Parts: sequence; structure tokens; C-alpha cells
Amino acid sequence: MKLAVKDLDIGTGGPLIAVLHSSDAQRMDLHFEDRVRLSHGKRRVVAILDITSSQGVVRQGVIGLMDELVKELGVRDGQNIEVQLEQKPASLQHIRSKLDGACLSEEQLGEIVYDITRNKLSEIEIAYFVASTYIRGLNADEVAALTKAMVKYGETLDFPPPVMDKHSIGGVPGNRTTMVVVPIVAAAGLTIPKTSSRAITSAAGTADVMEVLARVEVPLPELRHIVKRVGACMVWGGALALAPADDRIIRVESPLSLDAEGQMIASVLAKKRSVGATHVLIDIPVGAGAKVWDMERGERLRGLFEGIGKQLGMEVHVLLTDGAQPIGNGIGSALEARDVLWILLGDERAPADLRKKSIMMAGKLLEMGSAAPLGEGVKLAEELLRSGKAYRKMVEIIDAQGRRASRPEELVLGRQTEEVRAARPGTIRSADNKFIARIARALGSPEG
Amino acid sequence: MKLAVKDLDIGTGGPLIAVLHSSDAQRMDLHFEDRVRLSHGKRRVVAILDITSSQGVVRQGVIGLMDELVKELGVRDGQNIEVQLEQKPASLQHIRSKLDGACLSEEQLGEIVYDITRNKLSEIEIAYFVASTYIRGLNADEVAALTKAMVKYGETLDFPPPVMDKHSIGGVPGNRTTMVVVPIVAAAGLTIPKTSSRAITSAAGTADVMEVLARVEVPLPELRHIVKRVGACMVWGGALALAPADDRIIRVESPLSLDAEGQMIASVLAKKRSVGATHVLIDIPVGAGAKVWDMERGERLRGLFEGIGKQLGMEVHVLLTDGAQPIGNGIGSALEARDVLWILLGDERAPADLRKKSIMMAGKLLEMGSAAPLGEGVKLAEELLRSGKAYRKMVEIIDAQGRRASRPEELVLGRQTEEVRAARPGTIRSADNKFIARIARALGSPEG
Repeated sequence: MKLAVKDLDIGTGGPLIAVLHSSDAQRMDLHFEDRVRLSHGKRRVVAILDITSSQGVVRQGVIGLMDELVKELGVRDGQNIEVQLEQKPASLQHIRSKLDGACLSEEQLGEIVYDITRNKLSEIEIAYFVASTYIRGLNADEVAALTKAMVKYGETLDFPPPVMDKHSIGGVPGNRTTMVVVPIVAAAGLTIPKTSSRAITSAAGTADVMEVLARVEVPLPELRHIVKRVGACMVWGGALALAPADDRIIRVESPLSLDAEGQMIASVLAKKRSVGATHVLIDIPVGAGAKVWDMERGERLRGLFEGIGKQLGMEVHVLLTDGAQPIGNGIGSALEARDVLWILLGDERAPADLRKKSIMMAGKLLEMGSAAPLGEGVKLAEELLRSGKAYRKMVEIIDAQGRRASRPEELVLGRQTEEVRAARPGTIRSADNKFIARIARALGSPEG
Repeated sequence: MKLAVKDLDIGTGGPLIAVLHSSDAQRMDLHFEDRVRLSHGKRRVVAILDITSSQGVVRQGVIGLMDELVKELGVRDGQNIEVQLEQKPASLQHIRSKLDGACLSEEQLGEIVYDITRNKLSEIEIAYFVASTYIRGLNADEVAALTKAMVKYGETLDFPPPVMDKHSIGGVPGNRTTMVVVPIVAAAGLTIPKTSSRAITSAAGTADVMEVLARVEVPLPELRHIVKRVGACMVWGGALALAPADDRIIRVESPLSLDAEGQMIASVLAKKRSVGATHVLIDIPVGAGAKVWDMERGERLRGLFEGIGKQLGMEVHVLLTDGAQPIGNGIGSALEARDVLWILLGDERAPADLRKKSIMMAGKLLEMGSAAPLGEGVKLAEELLRSGKAYRKMVEIIDAQGRRASRPEELVLGRQTEEVRAARPGTIRSADNKFIARIARALGSPEG
């Protein structure tokens, strides 16, 4: 059947959606979320159907196309295209099987991830996939297969081994270890191409804090070049197409703040494999207010991360750290950037807890990458920090990515300050992570 | 924050969706599926946020509104409206709890159904609800609560008791008992306001077949009037707003053809309660090719339907019938309508199996409604049929709804016919329900 194109002039940022009027849909026996093959000249593309019955621009005889489809078909407003029913993708059967409690094979998970990557599944269908893995769980083989597929259908980086990487499970304000660890590890001559995320609900993500000092949205070819030259980077992963299926899945998880364990492990490991990591240190803060609130779950995650890492050919080491309290002194992008620079510069105002944790992690990575003998990593990390080599490496990275600031005194802090004095002397015994994050966000973080 | 309205001129047919450009979303710290309160003059409405980063009509400073929102706000293209973050509905927490395996209270299910009805949940969020009930299941109390909520937040009918109703679980081609049962039961003086569905994957739904004889899209006030006058109706339920939450849930189930047991029971019983039914006969065809393929599941469904019906104050009786084979002679709207008229007219070409099954069901309903003593229902049904009273009632119903045809010879059948002759004599031992439905659809059913 021929229908006239209406360019809807909005994009979904994902699924390829075409909108049909209900009268045409009924005539063609088409239903919500059916697949249709659209043909325009020699171009063909399969779209997911939405159906409207309102009397707007998509009326009888018209097919509304989202931006992504207009582009793929190379079609203009008013042109006629051919619309035909197409079979639904096999991946829907696999999702259905998982809902019914089956274990999925590497091939089945591969098809699901491929279809998510290529925008062949709707967000409702992805939600069913998320729900199925959330409730039914994924076993270690499934997580490994999911990880591999996410890597396979995305961009990847490739550097001569060893390639180091680190990751902290979120939930702890001020946990800005990356920005101390990466320069130390790179200063020892190891390769560490680090991608980070922006804040979702926290006061600031590492990418937000790094953005105070340098540009963090760096295209992939430039990124390759930077890492080859400087040995490290600290960029926003969201701007790259590393494991893009993962980004789509996370988007669909967000309305319910779901955090399915298997998905989360696959998500972390896929980002690491995509940058070519061979050695990965994972920091799991454990404590009330952190994402992982008890040691038992922490230990289970450790086992999964390390075992699945091995299946994927990566040496993964997990640290369970104290996640009950915020780390560092400042909370929010600029204040956290200042803490980091103070540590790298050896300033006496540097927060001792963040410094200590970072050195411990850097030391472990130095040992994993054979830059230091076993048991000597922390000593080397201390030395690289004290000698100023780590700071100089930080400046190199900042300059390579596009410098904004590299000295504490260059940072622009918020103008409003409020000193809170305790009514009587004492020791602070605890602070509420989530409450502190909320205050920082209300004050404008992660923007400044 | 003030943004300029762009009327997107398409409707979702459900969720209230506003589209923001990613740059504004980032600035306002808003995310996909967040809720925003839109204010225009004195009007206020809460919308669900979608985020685009394409360079189309929704650019920085603009908020795109789907038809439903434009109408609710009474706003025009280019006008400024105020946009503020709003809390997510509590129903999302309940859905989350169900995903985690909790049992939901009547109040919690009520909130979910209310929010679905009022377009306060996105389709992704409804999908999570469906997935949670599909995998975790619903106990009898939950099904009853879900049913009550679906009825509460929709239109209802109310007639003096007893009010009879029937329902057949689908999957068997030609199972057009409704169109024989309803005139018989009404001819006995009982009230039976019957709503039916159109075909989804079958050759024809009862509403499609009835549409060959009369108009089936009848507004609710007119429907009340018809039933009061004639004692019965046979209309398309989709045109009425009976249990609208159910229609939305079914829409979201369709991409994966999910048929969660608890949802299905609630869906059936809600439609019955909405029309004010006090006595309900449910036909569950059991057999290969039918929706219910073994007796064990059939018996479990019987127990659930009857028990939950009682909780809802309805006398529900379940018949487990043979669902392995098609019923009647014709498959497809016009042929099935002809079978029905032949039965009502006592024509010798009438299919014996459909006639027998319909009389059995009508008999049961006559007994349930005290129009016949126990054990005498079938006899009375036979009599009403043979005397022509049932046919005359059918003509009354057809005329009341808007007549199209009431005699077999008025029906327009397909012009193409093909006689298939067996190569050798024998008896047909089985026919494939799904295959037959597919042939009929390929030939144009349910259209003609």
C-alpha cells in the first residue's frame, strides 16, 4: 500500500518509529508495534508502528515518520512510499522466553543486543527485556554473553596490553578517586583510557568534575590519538558509541530506577572491554546509603565480577570499600575538582580520606599492570604523587583533551557560602549521602 | 522555566507526553520519563517527559506537546508555558514492589489503575506492570482488586437484576455462540447487554460478525436505551469506555502477545461487572490450538473465575468445552453471520455443532437467570429457537442497533470460491485452528 510521507520533524533518539492513522491500520490489518517494511526507490527500512486516531497531521493516507526514518529513507514530505507488513524480529521470542524463565543462549542474547543497537526494538519491548532479566536474573554465562554482545555491536578501542581500567559503583558523594588514580597510573607508564559518566541523581559524576578542568566530549578518533600520546584520558563515555545497547537499556531502566544485577555487571564490564581493558579494578563501596548496603551482597558481586571478567579474558579485581560516608571535603563539581588538584599538588588542604583511598587503588593497579612488584604498589603510587609526576601527567591529560583549568586558584566556586557551626563540641559520626547530594544539586551542581 | 509551545499535531491515544530538547533537559536537570507540571494561565497538567536531541521542531527553548496536552492546556503554537519538575506518581513505587515480588493491596492496585486510566503512566511503565504481574502472578485477592479498580475508573451500565452475560475465551474459529445465545436468552425475557471484541489475530471477532448484520459502534447512552427496550444488545466493546485501563494494558501486552493469567481474568470480569452483570457464563474451549490447551489449566481457570466472581458479587459458571476443532461451517465474518442466521431460522444448512453448543449455553443461562427450572434450560432454549421467538428477538436487536441485514440471502459473500475435493473417501479427523484463521485473513476477513 502507498502512503504519503509526513516528516514529523522529531527524533526518538532510538527506535525507528512510523505513525499510521487508525483507519489505514485497520484497513491493512496492522497493529500497534507491528513491523512494516517501508520502501522508497531502492531504499528499504523496517519500522515499528505506532497508531494514532487523532485528527492531526497523520490522517488517512499519510504515514508520519520520525527523523531517524526520514534520514534512512532519504524521503521528503509528501512523497509516496510503499508500506508492507514485515515479520517481527526473532529477538521478541527470546525476550518472551526469558519472561517465561528460560536461560538464553549467547546467540539469543546476541540477537537481542543487535536489535536494540540497531533500533529494531521499541522501548516497551526493551522494558520487557529489562523486567525479565530483573526478575528472572541472569546467570554468569548469560552475563558474559550479554557483555560480549554489547561490545561486539559497538565501537571499540584497542591498545597494546596491558590496558588498565577502574570503576567505582556509584552512590558515594565525593568518591572522585578516578581523577587521582588515572594520572598516577599513567605517570608510571601504563595505559589507562578512562571513560566516566555524568551525574544522574548524585551531585556530580566524574565526567562532570573533569569537565571543570578540561573538555570531556572527545570524538573516538581523537581519543585514540590522545591515549596513544599521553597514555590516558578521562572523558565522558556518553559521547562515544561504546556498547550503545547498554545506554538504551539504562534509559529504559531509569523510569523505575531499576538496577538489575546482571545488567549492571554486564554494563560495567562491557564499557571496560570496549576500551580494550585487560586489567580492571572495581571499587564497590559498601554501606548504608551506598548502592550496595551489605557485605554479603558485596561479596557476591565480587565473585560475579571476577569470574565473569575471567570468562571475558580480563583480570578483574574487586575492592570492597567503606561506602557509608562521603569522601573528600567538597561535594559538587568545582569543589571536588579542587580536592583532586590539592591532592595532586600535595597541598595541605587536600582531603586525607580521598588521598588515601586513591593511593591504595592506584597501588593495586600498578601491581596488576606489573609496574610495581606485589606489595610495592602503594609505595610507588605515593612516590609518583609526591614527586609531582602524577600532577604533571594530569596537566598533560588536561592539555590533550582541551584545557579549562589546571590550578585550584583558577576554579570558579559558587558565591553563596554558609558556615554551619555545631552548637556544642563533638565529633561528626555520620553524614547522609543522599541528603548531601540533594543539597548540592539544589545549589546548582553538577553545573558549577 | 518558560518554554514556547510547539503543537506536534499527533496524539498518543493515551499517555500525556511532552517533548523537550536535550539541552533544556540538561539545564533543568530533567530526564526521560520524568514528570513535569505544565502551567498555562489557570490550567495545569502533569506530563510525562520525552527528550529529543535531533534538530527538528523541538529545539532549545521549545516544548513539543502531543494533541492530548494541547487540548488539556488550551494552548496554541508559540505561546509560552511554565514548566516545572513534578514528583513521580506513587503507583510507580507499587509497580516496583510488584517487580520485587510483593503482593499489592487493593489501594495500591487502585492507584495503578487510576493512573493508567488518567494517562499518568507511560507505556514503558505499564509494560513493567504487565511484566511484573505476568512473572510474579496475581493472587485471587489481587485479581479481584484489579477488577474492581478497572470497573471503578470506567463507565458502567446498571439494569435491574438479574443481568446475564457470557464470555468465550478466544482461539476457536467460528465459535459464534454469542449471536445465537443472546437472542434466545433475551427472548425468554432476561436482560443480556453483550459487548464483544473485534478480531485481533483470528478470522473474525463477534463484533466483526455482528457488524455484517447491524451497526456495532453504539454510544453508551443509546446502548442503555436499546437494552431497556429490547432486553439485549450485541455491540463492539472497544467503542465504549468500559474498564478503559484494561484496553491500555492489552495494548501494551500485544507486542509480545503476553496473556498474563491474572490480567486476563480481571479483564474478562471487569467487562462483565461494567455492564452490571449478575450472572455470567464463561466458555473455556480446551484443546490443541485453543488458548487453553490442557484440562488442568482449564480446571484451574474455572476455580479462579468462579471464586473471584463470587468475591465481586457475581455468580460465575464456567464450561470447559472442546476447543480442538473449529465450530460452525463458515470461517470469516459473512460466512459466520450466515451460519448464525441459518440456526435462528431453523434452516437445514445450519451447522449442527454450533447449534448444539449454543443451545447448551443458552440453557445454562436460562437456568442461572431462573427463566427455566434446573435441568429444563436446554428444553426451553430449543423451544425458543424452534418457535422463531429467538429469531424475532434477533431482528429486534438488529433493528434497534441499526439494521444492515437480517436474512441469509441479503449477505454479500466473497466472489472467489474454491472447492477442495478429497482424493479418496474418509472422515476429517482434525483441522488446524490457526491455519484456518490465517487462510480466512489472507482472503480478506474480517472485512467481508
